[in-house]
Amino acid sequence: MTYILGMLAIAVFAVTGVVAGGRKGMDILTIVILGNVTAIGGGTLRDIILDVNPIYWIADLTYLWVSTGASIAAFFLVPKISRTFRLLEYADGLGLAMFAVLATEKTLLLGFSGPVAVLMGMITGISGGMLRDILTARMPLLFGRELYATPVIVGCSLYVVCHGSVGAGWYDQLFAISVIFAFRAAAIRWGLYYPGWLTYTGNR
Amino acid sequence: MTYILGMLAIAVFAVTGVVAGGRKGMDILTIVILGNVTAIGGGTLRDIILDVNPIYWIADLTYLWVSTGASIAAFFLVPKISRTFRLLEYADGLGLAMFAVLATEKTLLLGFSGPVAVLMGMITGISGGMLRDILTARMPLLFGRELYATPVIVGCSLYVVCHGSVGAGWYDQLFAISVIFAFRAAAIRWGLYYPGWLTYTGNR
Amino acid sequence: MTYILGMLAIAVFAVTGVVAGGRKGMDILTIVILGNVTAIGGGTLRDIILDVNPIYWIADLTYLWVSTGASIAAFFLVPKISRTFRLLEYADGLGLAMFAVLATEKTLLLGFSGPVAVLMGMITGISGGMLRDILTARMPLLFGRELYATPVIVGCSLYVVCHGSVGAGWYDQLFAISVIFAFRAAAIRWGLYYPGWLTYTGNR
Repeated sequence: MTYILGMLAIAVFAVTGVVAGGRKGMDILTIVILGNVTAIGGGTLRDIILDVNPIYWIADLTYLWVSTGASIAAFFLVPKISRTFRLLEYADGLGLAMFAVLATEKTLLLGFSGPVAVLMGMITGISGGMLRDILTARMPLLFGRELYATPVIVGCSLYVVCHGSVGAGWYDQLFAISVIFAFRAAAIRWGLYYPGWLTYTGNR
Repeated sequence: MTYILGMLAIAVFAVTGVVAGGRKGMDILTIVILGNVTAIGGGTLRDIILDVNPIYWIADLTYLWVSTGASIAAFFLVPKISRTFRLLEYADGLGLAMFAVLATEKTLLLGFSGPVAVLMGMITGISGGMLRDILTARMPLLFGRELYATPVIVGCSLYVVCHGSVGAGWYDQLFAISVIFAFRAAAIRWGLYYPGWLTYTGNR
Repeated sequence: MTYILGMLAIAVFAVTGVVAGGRKGMDILTIVILGNVTAIGGGTLRDIILDVNPIYWIADLTYLWVSTGASIAAFFLVPKISRTFRLLEYADGLGLAMFAVLATEKTLLLGFSGPVAVLMGMITGISGGMLRDILTARMPLLFGRELYATPVIVGCSLYVVCHGSVGAGWYDQLFAISVIFAFRAAAIRWGLYYPGWLTYTGNR
């Protein structure tokens, strides 16, 4: 179950990597690299920081194959499908939710404390996309966008609390994933931002 | 003593991260992420390269709380304080000095050689700010600026030499921190650059 | 033999780092940092991902000295030599070939599987240059360029196959290096790109 969720999130993130990072004229290998960096970058950073060894996609190459397959599929299909990218934002939100909760779970199972687990959920969820933006020389989307990291923090914190009090069951995971996805989907749908007084007004 | 110095440097770097990386319109969570990356990024890279495990801010979450608190304070206060940013450059120089010397000390204590320790002092001191610049899609400040990394190399090398000959005392640390800070402060105050013949003239 | 090849590749990459990343007005320390990041960045990432400990340039500081020496030489000589940069692209291709094959070999010797070894060959070969481009706020050259990563994948895959069937000899290495270099050199010389149907056409 967790395994399939993970693969699904990998595939979704690879596709969003191609859509968001791909530019006209890139060859297929570049697209595959971009999809892979987006899909496995966040988890790689998490495993490096936690010193998990071997890193998850070296321990099980299936992740790489799924990510590569999804990138190749996106390479051929994305140019044919136009203007359904609102849909993709929701898919990205779902991948984000799955990635974050699975990472939180993994970190807790490794024996780390709750705050570290929430942090790793966030790092795993958002840094793949940040790496993609850095590689394509764009301003990371995290900055100046509807609520993105906030739903992750809320959902992962809830998960850590539930995990402690009722034991880890698959319904806990499902609950946390639903919370994050619903929150993020609402942010996309109704353009939720932080209120003005929680928005930086610059320093000059 | 060392511990308090470290916390102080973390707080200073978080604030400089917000001032240098913050842009109008960023929400508070983005600002906090930016402050944290700036403050703990350099030490994280050092610990990853040296394979220190667990990484310092996972071993002691206080670093994260201090960095987060300082970022939040900066979020609210920086827009109210205008035009004291020259002061902030000096504060950054002090944080840089403390970070670099503490990292050099830590690397020596882990049993690495002097040159590795100096290098880690430099990496710890400068890479937090470089990560911040990369995340905000700016040309890293390191390039084309008054002497910044040079004082660090000089001070950390001095520290390694003192450390070997007289044993590590807190006055050694204080001495090295003072050297770096004084050198960097002079560079800011009088606009010290490398002389022309040590400045790259390009290749075209 | 392997050792000397590695040093040569380090020196070549440091020089290409200075040529490609250097800008008028950078001081000599910045240039040295740039050369070092380009030369040792890829191998550092590989060693971090594989959890090799200590990282190769900490285990043997000679790499750093060679890289620093080559960067300093490039600092002084590059501005004097004009318009021979086509040559440098070939040199970069040679460094790329050597780096990739040596990394593949190292990964196999550590007991990892063939696909991981090929991947590490690629990561080692290309990520130093990507780091350099990120640090100098340029679009990574990987994107929109003649075949660059592709020769590496082909050559490293061949090497893994040969390695398995005939045992690792220095002529296997030489063969794989030659394949990658010849392929890359042909790509530079005749401007080889992927055909149109393997080139991304964007999504809007």
